[in-house]
Amino acid sequence: MRIGLLGFGVVGRGVYDIIALRSDMEVAKVVCLEDISLPDAQVTKHFDDVLSDSTINTVVEAMGGLHPAYEFVRAAIEAGKNIVTSNKALVATFYDELIPLAESKGVCFRCTAAVGGGIGWLSELERARRAQSIHRVGGIMNGTCNYILDSMTRLDLSYADALSQAQALGYAEANPSTDVDGIDTWHKLILSSNIGFGITLDPESVPAAGIRNIRAEDVANFKAHGLVCKLISTGKSQDGSFSAYVQPTLVHQGEPEAAVPANYNLITLVGSASGRMSFYGQGAGRYPTAYNVVQDCVDVLSGKHFYSPYGKKISAVNADALCYYVSGVQDSWLEDNRQATWGDAVITKPVSVKAMHAWLKNHPDAFIAALPVSEQ
Amino acid sequence: MRIGLLGFGVVGRGVYDIIALRSDMEVAKVVCLEDISLPDAQVTKHFDDVLSDSTINTVVEAMGGLHPAYEFVRAAIEAGKNIVTSNKALVATFYDELIPLAESKGVCFRCTAAVGGGIGWLSELERARRAQSIHRVGGIMNGTCNYILDSMTRLDLSYADALSQAQALGYAEANPSTDVDGIDTWHKLILSSNIGFGITLDPESVPAAGIRNIRAEDVANFKAHGLVCKLISTGKSQDGSFSAYVQPTLVHQGEPEAAVPANYNLITLVGSASGRMSFYGQGAGRYPTAYNVVQDCVDVLSGKHFYSPYGKKISAVNADALCYYVSGVQDSWLEDNRQATWGDAVITKPVSVKAMHAWLKNHPDAFIAALPVSEQ
Repeated sequence: MRIGLLGFGVVGRGVYDIIALRSDMEVAKVVCLEDISLPDAQVTKHFDDVLSDSTINTVVEAMGGLHPAYEFVRAAIEAGKNIVTSNKALVATFYDELIPLAESKGVCFRCTAAVGGGIGWLSELERARRAQSIHRVGGIMNGTCNYILDSMTRLDLSYADALSQAQALGYAEANPSTDVDGIDTWHKLILSSNIGFGITLDPESVPAAGIRNIRAEDVANFKAHGLVCKLISTGKSQDGSFSAYVQPTLVHQGEPEAAVPANYNLITLVGSASGRMSFYGQGAGRYPTAYNVVQDCVDVLSGKHFYSPYGKKISAVNADALCYYVSGVQDSWLEDNRQATWGDAVITKPVSVKAMHAWLKNHPDAFIAALPVSEQ
Repeated sequence: MRIGLLGFGVVGRGVYDIIALRSDMEVAKVVCLEDISLPDAQVTKHFDDVLSDSTINTVVEAMGGLHPAYEFVRAAIEAGKNIVTSNKALVATFYDELIPLAESKGVCFRCTAAVGGGIGWLSELERARRAQSIHRVGGIMNGTCNYILDSMTRLDLSYADALSQAQALGYAEANPSTDVDGIDTWHKLILSSNIGFGITLDPESVPAAGIRNIRAEDVANFKAHGLVCKLISTGKSQDGSFSAYVQPTLVHQGEPEAAVPANYNLITLVGSASGRMSFYGQGAGRYPTAYNVVQDCVDVLSGKHFYSPYGKKISAVNADALCYYVSGVQDSWLEDNRQATWGDAVITKPVSVKAMHAWLKNHPDAFIAALPVSEQ
């Protein structure tokens, strides 16, 4: 297998290092805009040098961002090359276009490292689907948010201090919006639901609430009730209808999710035969992520295409009625739905996920968290 | 794929049910000593009816026990049939014989359900080895012990009451020795180490300490120090030498292992690239276990043989020096190694795993638990 590697940042460099140890594949060319030279691969600034090289049968995209990653990946598929990428935004955004195109061209398209970094989550889903149907996918999919929430809980930090610490450690970007507003988790949930359930979710129908408005007082309220707050994604399949949403969620101390420390992930599926299976590991980092990119290359070698066939387009229903903790805003709808009070926060009566997120859209300063399912 | 199914108990029945839904494989014959009839398979009391049927290419062994499972599996391999089994005692005990025999006959031999029940742990190990070397395997591998320890910790039950409850729920046998003395975990650790490290451990060199002597006072001592006791297996590979042992181990409240409830398992590998990856799920039960048997059948269909090549025979070294909690016995060796006292129990100075287990062999009434690695 001769590989064209796009990008030589954190992940790209890791992929190069791991593949250098293998005899069944080689990185033939690296597209990189910086002036570097490598002992075993030709370095070029021009993607066309990869595209026009007929000896390169697989493109590993490790650039990130939507453009020009999209144009490069699309052109590579058109040219009959297999794709391995860790770019969740790319795959979730252009799912409708890239997956059917790869199917029609008969090339492999793998993106395991896009969800869970070091956890081979999408491959796990692919395997799990072979022998059962999947009822549920989701969990803690974003290490940055978990780091912030964990620091607030264990060290009693403010949100601002926890975020600064995450930034200092390289776990959060200078502009942390993609992580803290739940966008990264949203991409990962859409991909997981599409693959787990064999559908194509309309992204517009999948709401995401983040953690940027959480206060130390909120964490204190949760502790007083034996609860821990985590950013959790939920995808559900039931009787042919689907739900999918991302939101801060309260779990009891002592539950597996509550014990996930620092920037780790814990991702779960529930299958008709296996019951609950969860996967725990590093959600990011050079070698964990690069490891799953290389695993995808091994799967390409053995002829694995995409994880599940491209499925019909569908909207998430999100009719589940949940009780929510809401702080930071007061209004009459909230008052009408109040069933209890924790500090200065409202605990709502059961309201539909869809209604809660519609309200949140008009109240961007509010913080919401779903109560544990066992209290619903 | 035409399957001969040996045994129609908890697992066998589950396998039959799941395969009935599939078009790529069928259970052609079931060997069962009871008088039953099945809509889709011929039932026989005689293994020879399976062995002599040349249309049956795969034998699924779900009888349990060493004999006649061993004789049947061996004969089936000799006859060129693939083997899928959930029988950890069989594979761990006859590893030396069955794995090389299957290799020489070119048949597939799969036993994923033997470790972790509903967790596809051995398949995970097989996948992880494709792209890195494995430094460590192990974890909570026995649901019965976890149920007992969890009940003692969360509900303050005595060992006897927790065991009775586990027996009433069907989680423990009338004679619980295989579980509570660590023998089941010992088999699973040996299999995991062999496959993860590509070696063949001498079982005699792998010590196992169980939980039968744990008292409510011990659990109270652990709680007073913020610790939780779990039965944990450890396999390590370092610079060409190997350690492997099973023992009660103390973990801090809030760590992932501490949060594993009831009869669940949490099994971990540490790889050179992926770092830590853990797998959480039901360690037993009809459909979770049968699910992984069927996954193995799918892998046989795609031509997967054993998980790793048969490796050279080797003894575990177990030179790690750990501090232990020891209760139930007093003697001069223990006194000489005392560094602290918790209630009526001794906390030892660092002693080698090998020395501690050698002492324990002569003190069958003692209870030991290793202190957390972070306190060593």
